[in-house]
Amino acid sequence: MSVVEARLSEMGLTLPDAPVPVGAYTTWVAAGDLLFLSGTTCYVDGGLMSVGKVGSEVSLDEARQAARQTALNLLAVLRQALGDLDRVARVVKVNGYVNSAAGFDRQPEVINGASELFLAVFGDRGVHARTSIGVSELPGRIPVEIEMVVQVRPGPNAGPG
Amino acid sequence: MSVVEARLSEMGLTLPDAPVPVGAYTTWVAAGDLLFLSGTTCYVDGGLMSVGKVGSEVSLDEARQAARQTALNLLAVLRQALGDLDRVARVVKVNGYVNSAAGFDRQPEVINGASELFLAVFGDRGVHARTSIGVSELPGRIPVEIEMVVQVRPGPNAGPG
Amino acid sequence: MSVVEARLSEMGLTLPDAPVPVGAYTTWVAAGDLLFLSGTTCYVDGGLMSVGKVGSEVSLDEARQAARQTALNLLAVLRQALGDLDRVARVVKVNGYVNSAAGFDRQPEVINGASELFLAVFGDRGVHARTSIGVSELPGRIPVEIEMVVQVRPGPNAGPG
Repeated sequence: MSVVEARLSEMGLTLPDAPVPVGAYTTWVAAGDLLFLSGTTCYVDGGLMSVGKVGSEVSLDEARQAARQTALNLLAVLRQALGDLDRVARVVKVNGYVNSAAGFDRQPEVINGASELFLAVFGDRGVHARTSIGVSELPGRIPVEIEMVVQVRPGPNAGPG
Repeated sequence: MSVVEARLSEMGLTLPDAPVPVGAYTTWVAAGDLLFLSGTTCYVDGGLMSVGKVGSEVSLDEARQAARQTALNLLAVLRQALGDLDRVARVVKVNGYVNSAAGFDRQPEVINGASELFLAVFGDRGVHARTSIGVSELPGRIPVEIEMVVQVRPGPNAGPG
Repeated sequence: MSVVEARLSEMGLTLPDAPVPVGAYTTWVAAGDLLFLSGTTCYVDGGLMSVGKVGSEVSLDEARQAARQTALNLLAVLRQALGDLDRVARVVKVNGYVNSAAGFDRQPEVINGASELFLAVFGDRGVHARTSIGVSELPGRIPVEIEMVVQVRPGPNAGPG
């Protein structure tokens, strides 16, 4: 078993199925050793972990959990793309968009739910640059949307992408 | 004639003039084989195809058309940058920002107007990763703003950039 | 003294200390010759140059100044990362997020405060692709958040990142 998947297992985490795009695009594209991942959200068991604006309909703690679930879904995309999460050389950049109620300004604490999972799973290779912003609307009223750029070690990419 | 421009022609499309930056920046920059394109919008014939918030002032269908026109303007930037659209190796990443009325949550359907054009024009090379979000304000009240990253085949880049 | 730092000096500018991340991430990550910088804002002397929504609480001119200060903070990150600003080969991409009051649509004029500084400091190497959007909320009610991608010349990267 790969080192990273062993760590996931120790943490009691199992990767979900990779999310399916909800439009005319795909979940990842490789360009050289960079992998660009599409924005995704807190899908869980065929539904969403939470829905609505953070700071009113969704609490800060629920939003952090939603960001963590979103990060799990991004890991599922990476495993689908790479075959093995040990091929992640570095999490380069994370962009987090928080569906924010008027006056909610704690977006970084929300996105920490994702960032902390990447750190726990990848260690030093999980340390990333990041931007967190608050937006007024997200597709299907999801509370959070996260995209990322990852640098990968050489090897054959898998499907479907 | 290049394969991609022949396809555009079959689709009855002609590329507009490339948009002019509205600030202290340029429309594209190359770094290695990646081309980073500035965010642009639905310019047409010296004006805008539509103006205002999607979901109130601009209908979903109008917004889809605006996204498609924005994609045409991005293609015009690519032709200006590359000389020949056949040098596009892959549309890597598309980010779409929709000027959203309160409660409008169908951003992916809007941005599909751009994504579907890239698929039609480039085929498999047009399949991209994507993020669509809703924002509260865009420059000059444009309904949609789209930026992209493209991987290109070697060759001399043209101007103006 | 490096050429770029001499120019800063001529302009009467001194670089501030590099900003400290306010979450589980770092201020920059290198991938090949690209440097991805985290979103940052108008920190000055341990505080913020301005706070609140542009177009109501913060004027256009104050916001431009805030964007310029944000650009200075990004330069401080670059010096921390690279040791010497002359190693900047090209400012590739700038993304500017403006905390916008309802109806404020002059985001490009705000972000010009940053873009014009990059042009003044780096000359042709400072010409970049750019996207400016308006958002409804930003962390800690900052008026502007800016992130960037920079291409660098070979050389050892420094810390802390």
